[in-house]
Amino acid sequence: MELKITKTTNPKTKPEGALGFGKYFTDHMFVMQYDNGQWHDARIEPWRNFELAPSASILHYAQGVFEGCKAFKNEKGEVRFFRLRDNLKRMNNSADRICMPEFDMDFVYNAIRELVLIDEDWMPTAENCALYIRPSMIATEPALGVHASVSYIFFVILSPVGSYYGKTEPVNLFVEENYVRAAVGGTGGHKVIGNYAASLKAGEKAKANGYDQAMWLDAKEHRFVEEVGAMNIFFVMDGVVYTPELRGSILPGITRNSIITLLKDRGYTVNETQVDIYDVRDAAKEGRLTEVFGSGTAAVVSPVGKFCFQGVDYTVGNGKMGPIAKEMYDEVCGIQRGRKADSYGWVDIIKK
Amino acid sequence: MELKITKTTNPKTKPEGALGFGKYFTDHMFVMQYDNGQWHDARIEPWRNFELAPSASILHYAQGVFEGCKAFKNEKGEVRFFRLRDNLKRMNNSADRICMPEFDMDFVYNAIRELVLIDEDWMPTAENCALYIRPSMIATEPALGVHASVSYIFFVILSPVGSYYGKTEPVNLFVEENYVRAAVGGTGGHKVIGNYAASLKAGEKAKANGYDQAMWLDAKEHRFVEEVGAMNIFFVMDGVVYTPELRGSILPGITRNSIITLLKDRGYTVNETQVDIYDVRDAAKEGRLTEVFGSGTAAVVSPVGKFCFQGVDYTVGNGKMGPIAKEMYDEVCGIQRGRKADSYGWVDIIKK
Repeated sequence: MELKITKTTNPKTKPEGALGFGKYFTDHMFVMQYDNGQWHDARIEPWRNFELAPSASILHYAQGVFEGCKAFKNEKGEVRFFRLRDNLKRMNNSADRICMPEFDMDFVYNAIRELVLIDEDWMPTAENCALYIRPSMIATEPALGVHASVSYIFFVILSPVGSYYGKTEPVNLFVEENYVRAAVGGTGGHKVIGNYAASLKAGEKAKANGYDQAMWLDAKEHRFVEEVGAMNIFFVMDGVVYTPELRGSILPGITRNSIITLLKDRGYTVNETQVDIYDVRDAAKEGRLTEVFGSGTAAVVSPVGKFCFQGVDYTVGNGKMGPIAKEMYDEVCGIQRGRKADSYGWVDIIKK
Repeated sequence: MELKITKTTNPKTKPEGALGFGKYFTDHMFVMQYDNGQWHDARIEPWRNFELAPSASILHYAQGVFEGCKAFKNEKGEVRFFRLRDNLKRMNNSADRICMPEFDMDFVYNAIRELVLIDEDWMPTAENCALYIRPSMIATEPALGVHASVSYIFFVILSPVGSYYGKTEPVNLFVEENYVRAAVGGTGGHKVIGNYAASLKAGEKAKANGYDQAMWLDAKEHRFVEEVGAMNIFFVMDGVVYTPELRGSILPGITRNSIITLLKDRGYTVNETQVDIYDVRDAAKEGRLTEVFGSGTAAVVSPVGKFCFQGVDYTVGNGKMGPIAKEMYDEVCGIQRGRKADSYGWVDIIKK
């Protein structure tokens, strides 16, 4: 398939000041369409709105998947992708989970490389900033029968971003015992758009109670920790690092995987297992819970200062970012920006 | 709020032959928008595509809800709504579940009445046909942070429809033991768009195995029946009618409620309880399972001929539509079309 490129004749004004997360978008986007069993009309074109029929299936049945990944521009002027192929592979898995067509990973990878280079001027260079890459696939068939759509749009938009939470202090969590994010056998292990709307209510409840995010427990026993907000989560108890094992309801995070890999190589004991909230509570009570941190593409590592469980607040360690969270943050960011060696082949330098 | 009406100057060609379900749409639609905490710009206007930013939150996080209801035109020329207010009430409940704003039910009810009367010529009059009403609300904020959108579109589209399955023979079900539709604490009890994409894979699996729909079991024990496809379900065992009780993961169907009401008034014993698939299987083996039928707005009543559980096929009754399913179908359709008395105040005649 040919990639057609049309550049804008009317570039947008670039943002000044704090970027926030996902608020500004670059001048161009990648789009391709799917009809009659084939992807077609792949193009990079100026950012513009989609025209969707009011009956388009994405609007009624949420047949959509997405990814989030980052590109970095460092002080040497290198443009660097972090594990983009892993994101695209996961996206094809997510698509399959809700009956959407597969796409050619190499073709899309190259299209994203072209797109990022065309919008290179939009890349922030400051520490903690990045160019966020958002590939998405949406169902567009204008019909209301509940079935897999026959037509789709695949698109990639780019957003220069700062820190996700807009702060570096630890976040505080509310352990959610009623609302459930996902069940084993559902779509929680995939980046399916419906998971995110389903998470909003618990997030608002946490905020209404004075916390930043919900900590999700499993759907079956409301006892085993799953995720936090839209991040994976790590606990350090008695010097061992625990993170919930992937049992189908938890997103197989790429930052999660990077951190597990880094921890093991640095000699930490990492235990991927069921993490019982009652054990976590007891460890906190007894001073054995030294760190908790979330992981995800947007925030990289997000330390947890305290959590509320059954109406009681528990402080994690001394309430500040702990040494392992700090080490992991520095390691991942260092590899992303080229300050640290990339021993794992995670980075593609697309422009030297 | 004023309702502005703009009529089309370019009406579409009306469909001929079989209507199918949700394939054709009328000339007009109702639209209103939400910004700065208020609904505004309510209008009936010619059908047209929406313009959505590629970053619109509906496309990434599935913050959307909908309803399905029907209007009928009978041989007397009456235009009749069936329980529309109940649908709108449920829609406000669904909206709240995923942090979307409430709308004024009376205002929307009246707007739908106007809309249906404007497109009255599109109403099919044949038995088994209806005008399907699809109110929807979608999140439109063009930003990628995971939070409730600040802007929304509420819209109503109309589709002249025939029978949902395009056949009147019983459907065959595949009892799904791996995929899960919804967990208690999730969004399964609300008409949230993410539920539907999540159901596609099991539907395709059922079809690949030669069945029409999946029968869903509960997320916790994979033992208690929840729904079938996108319908509620009823079982007749030993002369008693069983239907899964509403425990949060099952949609509180309006047709379900109508059928329970009708059954009780006609002297049937109705047991809303947990329905164990092993009990259903044993009843089928022993000839005590005389009927199974689904219920929903689209199909009204959909009899089940057989079901497959753990690799074994079980025939329901004599494999044909049973007397209770037939009675309920005739009762509900009769009330909808005005052949039977409406003792419950379910019907609004909006044009005599």
